[in-house]
Amino acid sequence: MQLCEVSGEGGAAIAVPGLVKLPEVVRAAHRISRVVRRTPLIPLTPRVSLKAECLQVTGSFKLRGAYNAIAAALEEDDIRGVVTHSSGNHAQGVARAARLLGLSATAVMPCTTPPMKRERVARDGAEVIEVGTSSEERVEVARELSRTRELLFLSSTEHPQIIAGQGTVGLEVAESYRELREAHVLRGDGDGAGLEVLVPIGGGGLASGVGLAIKSLLPRATVVGVEPALAADARQSLEGGRVVRWPVEDVTRTIADGLQHTSVGALSFSHLRVFLDRIVTVSEAQIKQAIRWLAAEAHLVVEPSGAVSVAAYLAESAEDAEREHTVCVVSGGNVDLCSYVSWLEEAEREVANGDQ
Amino acid sequence: MQLCEVSGEGGAAIAVPGLVKLPEVVRAAHRISRVVRRTPLIPLTPRVSLKAECLQVTGSFKLRGAYNAIAAALEEDDIRGVVTHSSGNHAQGVARAARLLGLSATAVMPCTTPPMKRERVARDGAEVIEVGTSSEERVEVARELSRTRELLFLSSTEHPQIIAGQGTVGLEVAESYRELREAHVLRGDGDGAGLEVLVPIGGGGLASGVGLAIKSLLPRATVVGVEPALAADARQSLEGGRVVRWPVEDVTRTIADGLQHTSVGALSFSHLRVFLDRIVTVSEAQIKQAIRWLAAEAHLVVEPSGAVSVAAYLAESAEDAEREHTVCVVSGGNVDLCSYVSWLEEAEREVANGDQ
Repeated sequence: MQLCEVSGEGGAAIAVPGLVKLPEVVRAAHRISRVVRRTPLIPLTPRVSLKAECLQVTGSFKLRGAYNAIAAALEEDDIRGVVTHSSGNHAQGVARAARLLGLSATAVMPCTTPPMKRERVARDGAEVIEVGTSSEERVEVARELSRTRELLFLSSTEHPQIIAGQGTVGLEVAESYRELREAHVLRGDGDGAGLEVLVPIGGGGLASGVGLAIKSLLPRATVVGVEPALAADARQSLEGGRVVRWPVEDVTRTIADGLQHTSVGALSFSHLRVFLDRIVTVSEAQIKQAIRWLAAEAHLVVEPSGAVSVAAYLAESAEDAEREHTVCVVSGGNVDLCSYVSWLEEAEREVANGDQ
Repeated sequence: MQLCEVSGEGGAAIAVPGLVKLPEVVRAAHRISRVVRRTPLIPLTPRVSLKAECLQVTGSFKLRGAYNAIAAALEEDDIRGVVTHSSGNHAQGVARAARLLGLSATAVMPCTTPPMKRERVARDGAEVIEVGTSSEERVEVARELSRTRELLFLSSTEHPQIIAGQGTVGLEVAESYRELREAHVLRGDGDGAGLEVLVPIGGGGLASGVGLAIKSLLPRATVVGVEPALAADARQSLEGGRVVRWPVEDVTRTIADGLQHTSVGALSFSHLRVFLDRIVTVSEAQIKQAIRWLAAEAHLVVEPSGAVSVAAYLAESAEDAEREHTVCVVSGGNVDLCSYVSWLEEAEREVANGDQ
């Protein structure tokens, strides 16, 4: 695992202009409260808890941002329908949110999306348009549809209301953490000292929202972004101080299909610089071991993108003595079962061979 | 799937002498509140919710009864330690409960128990004594140890405080059901009309406790016991009006290792006669399909014994138009991963071949 310290901005500068603020996350929480589950924070051992967004409606956190953004837009304007580009889970979130709000949805998806994710988007009544693997092409096709069909364009990250919606994950983590502390299930300080929150980074929307909510509510907590080493554009961007774009043929090597973004968005990047303490990367083998561990120890089926936080925890666990407790955001569970079985088998074999 | 109507005693006769009463379940809930998780009731579709006891501490509901029984005994007497006989999950519950209460534990387990279950009992500091597959032999060895070592003997079912502890699952189902109704997530009446609760039957402790809690709190709900067709001793017992014992070589044919009891206990039988509306049985293929469905749709890793309730729901779903909502008690998630992978593969193949 490689580590990268983000340049000293830590959690102090919460009032940076242009960033989403906590009250917007709180408003998002109210907006989505009737359609989104408050997923459990599962204290698995005294050292680690899991925020189980794989148990969320549509199988990932994405409904939070999608529903919040569409509902907020409807408060302002009439909308005929929505269009989005996504590798899978965001499209599911948008399709479900649009259906719940009585709107049509169109999803531009890459041909590499697991068929199961595509089918579920269609099951919610959305039109699926398949394009190649390049995220630029997806964005272009979606923008064109937005213009010609007069649809609301919804990026998976570059929208303040998407970030605010994903931030409700952080809001719930902070609330559950306080409840578990008060019930003496977890140790730790009221301001989050000794708490570490690990969160996956793809386009950066989830990490932005979780980072801002956690740093606002538990200012001494550490927030760590996690991405696959094979798609470590966010780490490189934060190290270099500007958004770096990776070639699509590089980022699509990871099994974490939800994190195959060629770059984080500009709006997310502004948030990540302020709210993340560091970014760590994990290997493909570590992701598969995390998937196995989540099945064996937590009885959760988790997709590779959702398991990277646990992969980082398992890799780190011996290193950081100052950490009292780690929360892993387990962001989704939408897997193709054939692939899932093969990852479990591979990880089992490694354990049996003592490779780990 | 075969059905069996229990002889008309329904939920009316709640004040039958000798049965556990609701206040004992409420006392159990207070006793265990600091060590047991309130597991989520996950509303998966408008028609079905899952009481996810696979997310419980030790991976199954068994800690509830074990902790309650030992803690209640400690309120009365000094205890040197506890001894139990179990095919797996109950031993884990007893081992963890004893550790939390500062007592020694001994578990007499059959040699057919998945190694993972045995290891976890040992991991909690309990002594494991392996015997053959017959539950009579296990009971005899455990009773002998109880006498010679002066240990508290804890059956997995035949103890009012075990039944009261397992009943807290039903208490939580009733509470969550009311909350979800008030939040308009679920439809249904306040007295449980239109609600069906499906609960696995092995020794009968869980079904007894859940039945009594549900019938006390939601008197018009239907409570249905589920067991594998290959170990349908409880169905036969209820049909015949007396406890029927099946040969051990018969009940051990099912993959549901937690339900391989040769008979229900006498105390449980008294409860099941009063509180169950009927018992249904499911095939091994249906159990594997339920395991697959739980992975794909609910993102939960569930053991065969825990999946029988969902197997019954999937088999029934087209039949019963009067049912507004079904709650499946998903009782545990402790699987050997190699076996789990093979069940998933088998179920996937069946779906691909259109056998289902």
